Amino acid sequence: MSAATIGGQNGAMPELITIDDVRSAAELLRGTAVRTPLLPCLAGDPDRPLWIKPESLQPTGAFKIRGATNALLRLTKQERERGVVTHSSGNHAQALAYAAKVTGVPAVVVVPYGTPQTKIDAARRHGAEIVQCELAVRQETAEAISRERGLPMVPPYDHPHVIAGQGTAGLEIAEDLPEVELVLVPVSGGGLLSGVATAIKALCPAAKVVGVEPELAADAQASYRSGVLDRWSAEQRGRTIADGLRSYLSELTLAHLRARVDDIVTVTEDEITSAVGWLAHNARLVAEPSGAVPLAAYLNRADELPRGRTVVVVSGGNMDAELFAKLV
Amino acid sequence: MSAATIGGQNGAMPELITIDDVRSAAELLRGTAVRTPLLPCLAGDPDRPLWIKPESLQPTGAFKIRGATNALLRLTKQERERGVVTHSSGNHAQALAYAAKVTGVPAVVVVPYGTPQTKIDAARRHGAEIVQCELAVRQETAEAISRERGLPMVPPYDHPHVIAGQGTAGLEIAEDLPEVELVLVPVSGGGLLSGVATAIKALCPAAKVVGVEPELAADAQASYRSGVLDRWSAEQRGRTIADGLRSYLSELTLAHLRARVDDIVTVTEDEITSAVGWLAHNARLVAEPSGAVPLAAYLNRADELPRGRTVVVVSGGNMDAELFAKLV
Repeated sequence: MSAATIGGQNGAMPELITIDDVRSAAELLRGTAVRTPLLPCLAGDPDRPLWIKPESLQPTGAFKIRGATNALLRLTKQERERGVVTHSSGNHAQALAYAAKVTGVPAVVVVPYGTPQTKIDAARRHGAEIVQCELAVRQETAEAISRERGLPMVPPYDHPHVIAGQGTAGLEIAEDLPEVELVLVPVSGGGLLSGVATAIKALCPAAKVVGVEPELAADAQASYRSGVLDRWSAEQRGRTIADGLRSYLSELTLAHLRARVDDIVTVTEDEITSAVGWLAHNARLVAEPSGAVPLAAYLNRADELPRGRTVVVVSGGNMDAELFAKLV
Repeated sequence: MSAATIGGQNGAMPELITIDDVRSAAELLRGTAVRTPLLPCLAGDPDRPLWIKPESLQPTGAFKIRGATNALLRLTKQERERGVVTHSSGNHAQALAYAAKVTGVPAVVVVPYGTPQTKIDAARRHGAEIVQCELAVRQETAEAISRERGLPMVPPYDHPHVIAGQGTAGLEIAEDLPEVELVLVPVSGGGLLSGVATAIKALCPAAKVVGVEPELAADAQASYRSGVLDRWSAEQRGRTIADGLRSYLSELTLAHLRARVDDIVTVTEDEITSAVGWLAHNARLVAEPSGAVPLAAYLNRADELPRGRTVVVVSGGNMDAELFAKLV
């Protein structure tokens, strides 16, 4: 993972991934990630026909398996035998643990105290070694393990191999609907949006790619507009119900967004929760709030969006059972 | 639709469809039905690995679009220009109306008074002509229209073209998981089970195919065991919450089941409603009770089922929003 040092911390423009990186990731993913279908949604606005890319149907319930698998399979044979480490309390940890099991790589997952036991159990069931620590030091803890045990880190988004893996979702959209005109993607750390935009702009250059985030955690929009990383406080970002969208961009993902994304729009909390119910009733999908954010923009931001054939990426479906029961 | 007279009413053995009929249906369906993925389900029993075939993700929310489209595209050009007629209050009506729109065929749908307005509106939105009548005479009403206006009937299951279309779901299972050992399919009129069993037995001859139905509407099991059509009363069948499984077999579907299905098992109402919640939380799918019936058997009838790699077909996801909110 020598590319892990890419990131422009010295002020240089980070190197962007290419469509070839995405294409070769797609080869590696076969058999681990599901090739999700593109679902025509009859309840969409006839003037803006709607398709859904349901990444909630991936084995661990989110797109994260694409990037994690690509990152693992790009390691050398020696590195794969020794294993990897990551830190996450959410979809990335489960995805990495599962991808590691399928590809035969030992994995250490650092999770903060307070992570729901079901999520810890899921990662452990896939064979990952779990290390718990205080939330504030989870990155340092993972870095220490990486250093001391010589294990490469697989970050959730800030890595070209992870971004290329997530981009395979965009490659599939372009294959299934070459005449797509607008793709709406949730943005948090920006890995999925960077990867999808890379694929769409290369294969469907006339299509627009727009990121969507909660207005309560709109630091990606602020960074995208100013061109300078704007990291809101954890308290600010923590206000949104979309718990998968509380990360912030990196230099690497910001560079992709500035080069390849057409806009970033925001949605309200009410719009997000309504979109969860809409997806259950109109598309028969269980989407977590973070995964429903692009649909919330489709339903409520028509005036800010290009018209035409629209794909919304439903990025994940992992959610507390009680919360879901409340939202449908 | 000259084959509409097939049905063995004279006591002769009805002619069974073949894998070639299913293969040629698959060609015709491309672009109308979604090729649904086979989803590995990590929450399954490790000794009986579980995959889900989510037909709930079809455009009108159920597998019915497969059979309806195949039946329409097998008509002559003249017949297609004139149009078709069907009777149904459920998934078949919506599927036929949608498939007719996509294939450019005028459609008349006879629905009984009392059908929920949302279902009527959905069929009308696809351009179908709606005719309402008393429940007891809906078949006669459709037949009268067929006769008077010279329109072929497209029945929900009792036709070889419909069965071959539904069988494409089985063809896809065999393509995606050739080493499948058990396929669980809901049974009502028997069109889906007949078609899937045809494909699986031809392509994966070692795999078992088992039908599942509510014990409150177990006339398919009775018919299958005795070899003689056993039609329970509408009152009896109406007791189950699985409102898509209240039809009965025809001579044609019974002949397919006797020749190609290994068993039919039943599940209780509690098992069905629990399976709806299980699918939402563990597979992130909204399944209607009828669609959750095979999973109910997987979860509760392990002792009656062959072990091994198991596929459950989730046949549909159309359900009243209030009922769904109650079940999750």
